[in-house]
Amino acid sequence: MAGETGTDRPRYLKIADELKAAIERGEYAPGARLPGENVLAPRYGVAVMTARRALRVLTNEGLAESRKGAGFFVQAFSPIRRRGIQRLARDQWGAGKSIWSADEDRPLAVDRVTVEELVPPAHITRVLELGEGETACARSRRFVLAGRPVMLATSYLPYALVAGSAIAQADTGPGGIYARLADLGHAPVHFREEVRGRLPTTEEATALAMSLERPILKVCRTAFDASQRVVEINEMTLDSASYVLDYEFDA
Amino acid sequence: MAGETGTDRPRYLKIADELKAAIERGEYAPGARLPGENVLAPRYGVAVMTARRALRVLTNEGLAESRKGAGFFVQAFSPIRRRGIQRLARDQWGAGKSIWSADEDRPLAVDRVTVEELVPPAHITRVLELGEGETACARSRRFVLAGRPVMLATSYLPYALVAGSAIAQADTGPGGIYARLADLGHAPVHFREEVRGRLPTTEEATALAMSLERPILKVCRTAFDASQRVVEINEMTLDSASYVLDYEFDA
Repeated sequence: MAGETGTDRPRYLKIADELKAAIERGEYAPGARLPGENVLAPRYGVAVMTARRALRVLTNEGLAESRKGAGFFVQAFSPIRRRGIQRLARDQWGAGKSIWSADEDRPLAVDRVTVEELVPPAHITRVLELGEGETACARSRRFVLAGRPVMLATSYLPYALVAGSAIAQADTGPGGIYARLADLGHAPVHFREEVRGRLPTTEEATALAMSLERPILKVCRTAFDASQRVVEINEMTLDSASYVLDYEFDA
Repeated sequence: MAGETGTDRPRYLKIADELKAAIERGEYAPGARLPGENVLAPRYGVAVMTARRALRVLTNEGLAESRKGAGFFVQAFSPIRRRGIQRLARDQWGAGKSIWSADEDRPLAVDRVTVEELVPPAHITRVLELGEGETACARSRRFVLAGRPVMLATSYLPYALVAGSAIAQADTGPGGIYARLADLGHAPVHFREEVRGRLPTTEEATALAMSLERPILKVCRTAFDASQRVVEINEMTLDSASYVLDYEFDA
């Protein structure tokens, strides 16, 4: 179990490190084709599979992408900066002073929407404080940027709270579900976001058209109204290569 | 490249799914031994390597851990809840209403500290607005919980700002570096945290004694003083199986 403790240093990782360094130095620009496994294998004196594995490290880290039959290319896709706390004026603080460069203002499109009434998973039932068998309105969406799927999001709201409102329809109208919750007297005034990282399930990887070996970020957003009732839970699944999460706050 | 799009559903993932479901149902309690590859292989009619790969999925997701020579065991380690915005009263909002269960108050220990003056990496130089060749005070620490390494953190501060203060020593005194920055007239009043997920480098996996196949979270915290100067950058590397990041804020 040498791999478990990481005390060895496999050849494919050394090769991957050298490719990464070359990308950082600008030897391979965004969109440029990387040397293929048939070039790398003799160059490093390793098996073609080893060279291929090195290239897969780069795709799993989102630094490169493979195109069927054409090889591996330096990632030309700049990650999306997702701001968790929009109320803060970003111009005031640290303009340009972020660790990772990312586009701020690219609009995401939604290419899949489903809205249904269902009995939600147990952890959702618990946090929404639903009774046994009580239903939620589940709104699932897939977000794409320039044709690339980047995020899945499923919102759960107590069905009894939103029945008859536009929240139970595909088009929620101007301002979206938070404006509709305000119409119903339950405007969200407080949020919690919980973030974890893990490898994707097969379903998640399929829906995001991504590798099973590239991590996802799970972001669970819980929205509270003024009476501290949970009015929405939004479970988001983000391709880790496509996102930087950004939270700003005062001391 | 079927794996890239995730349209296939390999046997090892089906087996992993069934093991995960059994853990969720409570058939295997935290700390319990899971069936080994020699049990799973004949049960599912697959090769021993396939069964082993299924078990590795669970370790990579932090649901199980392997012990050398003893097999695979259900993870008994509850993740750490890391609160990004401590000033908010957690009792006011959503006590118990979190998606992931996690311990709130376990104290982390630091088992490795290095403090050095160095020319930092280019992205740190840029954000700290250091001149060419200007040095930073770099404070690297490893955090452990019950003997398990869970986080690496390296803080960078402009050396010229902190030279002669306790920040340039291993023991920074009561209140840590933020109290010392306040002593120097540069108390942090605003923070940005940027979060990404990826697989670890060999160095990161070695330092955290974790698998190369389990994701890490990278958290970069930037601290600003009242004149909007960046006074510290803290680059943190978290074992994704050990942490839930938690951000709470008002609408």
